[in-house]
Amino acid sequence: MTNFTPGPSQLYFTVPDHLKSALRENVPSLSHRSKEFEKIYKDVVTGLRELLGIPDTFSIFFTSSATEVWERSIENLVENTSYHFVNGAFSKRYAEIATQLKKSVTLIQAPEGEGFEVPSSIPSAIELIAVTHNETSTGVSWPVDAIAELRQKNKSALLVVDAVSSLPYPAFDYTQIDSVFFSVQKAFGLPAGLGVWLVNERCLAKADTLLAKGHSIGTYHNLPTLHAFANKYQTPETPNVLGIYLLSKVAQDFLRRGITTLRRETEYKAAILYRALDSHPSISAFVKEVSHRSKTVIVANTGAHTAQLAKHLASKGLHAGDGYGKAKETQLRFANFPAHSKEQFELLVDVIEKFE
Amino acid sequence: MTNFTPGPSQLYFTVPDHLKSALRENVPSLSHRSKEFEKIYKDVVTGLRELLGIPDTFSIFFTSSATEVWERSIENLVENTSYHFVNGAFSKRYAEIATQLKKSVTLIQAPEGEGFEVPSSIPSAIELIAVTHNETSTGVSWPVDAIAELRQKNKSALLVVDAVSSLPYPAFDYTQIDSVFFSVQKAFGLPAGLGVWLVNERCLAKADTLLAKGHSIGTYHNLPTLHAFANKYQTPETPNVLGIYLLSKVAQDFLRRGITTLRRETEYKAAILYRALDSHPSISAFVKEVSHRSKTVIVANTGAHTAQLAKHLASKGLHAGDGYGKAKETQLRFANFPAHSKEQFELLVDVIEKFE
Repeated sequence: MTNFTPGPSQLYFTVPDHLKSALRENVPSLSHRSKEFEKIYKDVVTGLRELLGIPDTFSIFFTSSATEVWERSIENLVENTSYHFVNGAFSKRYAEIATQLKKSVTLIQAPEGEGFEVPSSIPSAIELIAVTHNETSTGVSWPVDAIAELRQKNKSALLVVDAVSSLPYPAFDYTQIDSVFFSVQKAFGLPAGLGVWLVNERCLAKADTLLAKGHSIGTYHNLPTLHAFANKYQTPETPNVLGIYLLSKVAQDFLRRGITTLRRETEYKAAILYRALDSHPSISAFVKEVSHRSKTVIVANTGAHTAQLAKHLASKGLHAGDGYGKAKETQLRFANFPAHSKEQFELLVDVIEKFE
Repeated sequence: MTNFTPGPSQLYFTVPDHLKSALRENVPSLSHRSKEFEKIYKDVVTGLRELLGIPDTFSIFFTSSATEVWERSIENLVENTSYHFVNGAFSKRYAEIATQLKKSVTLIQAPEGEGFEVPSSIPSAIELIAVTHNETSTGVSWPVDAIAELRQKNKSALLVVDAVSSLPYPAFDYTQIDSVFFSVQKAFGLPAGLGVWLVNERCLAKADTLLAKGHSIGTYHNLPTLHAFANKYQTPETPNVLGIYLLSKVAQDFLRRGITTLRRETEYKAAILYRALDSHPSISAFVKEVSHRSKTVIVANTGAHTAQLAKHLASKGLHAGDGYGKAKETQLRFANFPAHSKEQFELLVDVIEKFE
């Protein structure tokens, strides 16, 4: 069965072998204060920098989930005010976390299934702008150029990008953003339980400022502590060592395939699925505006056919993801990650095209 | 090589097979909102309740580490004041986290290598008493009766027990404590990246009170949120599903061996190692007071012989843990977990006895 749920999703095909190597190399028993662990952390940093084009001005930290980064980013980067583009369940949850942390939260909302135009101005008092690059619940994405434009129009705020279900696909211009994060159980095809948080020097300085002002910015996972340990390729706590090891290996696998190939294949697979949805008599793509269509999480309006189509796909070995929340009855979601091969997508498209 | 480091430590011997089963059952691709995941969570709860004798008045939550519980317990259970028994690096760190979170912190300190007598009184304004049942850095432990006595003398404060490197060994009286936590890479013999947090109804009520008073108690991992999701056997975030699955399996393995057997074996292994240290001409047990000696992390004063003994043990396939921090040059630590067999301990003792 090929798993098209948008996360946890299909494991990348090399992961079972890497798990075996991990056991052989005693990775689960490694001390997180050992040279061997430092080497693994360093491998992740080197691999991700090369794969994603992350400049040296960014530090790379591990958290337990992207959900944790929602909380830590607000604690460490916002004294009073954050601004959130909300167009689905996950962007909404990020804003709710800021509210729970007693921040003054400004929302700009779009209907589900729609994206955003870059607003002409955002109040200058805003300290953090939260952009959900790929809204996993609705399959709406930001063009990377629009994110750069957003930054050009708002240079004082920190621009934080939730790329949970899109990286490694998007080719961000890292000079135009301040922080990005993702979790490994989506497009990296790994077991869940690890988040990756990139921050630049402006973020580190902001956390230092909040700390100096006497604010509580959390403890073992505040930015100064994460940074001090990351400088030694260590983590403050005993982390998910096995998850970090697997990420180091899959980053190498992705590099061997080449980021250009991965991106081209992602675009090809997205194109054939959207084409099938656009030309289908009874089902359609949920996101109408082509420039806002996610390449990595593709949502189909399947209406009254939902259960029947899901069952039919399953009979062909294709496990579609449910629509999110209330859309469970009327939509299906299809993850398009490196773990999903061109052949699997061609089969998926073929089955959908023949479905009546 | 048998790994005696106190954590991450030796994997429990069944773990490689459980990892294979996990792959076969597609556990890493499971949605954390699926019935299959709820079943796994339920299996952990059932297994731990039976293994450790945890009453139904306690809820069982997952965190990413015990370090996280230090932070979450202070955020959720303390408005102003916490009280910490500090006799080593880990109990000290718990107190530091309370300080970082702007609480008023009272310390009672013992020299490293020494334990505590139960004080006759603790100020009644104290909201949380933090007891590190087993101080991993020094091998000092609390008798479980002393913890019950501490509670009897201080009924108003919440009594929180850090049992990171001791459970499942101690037979706590759960009617005399309010919260316990541990992490799985110690005595459960699992890969790191998962903490387990038990709280009773008094803890849940306290968090509700703090929330009602307008305090920030964190977001996705505050107690009301953890509790609401745990009631459905779910987690707020995408958790370490694989780690939770492995814990469910090892809890079953421990139940099959029987908690009485596990505890008896732990005591036997501790007894023969302490006897060897007590009768050795040139090395000795660090903890002098027999009632304060940890059964699960045994620290040896090895002085000038440290490097030589460690090397000699390694030549016999026995990997001793370093002394903690500055004691690295003068001590060795030996974890005594269910993953360490009687035969491995007998070999360890034999090699130590013959070492001159």
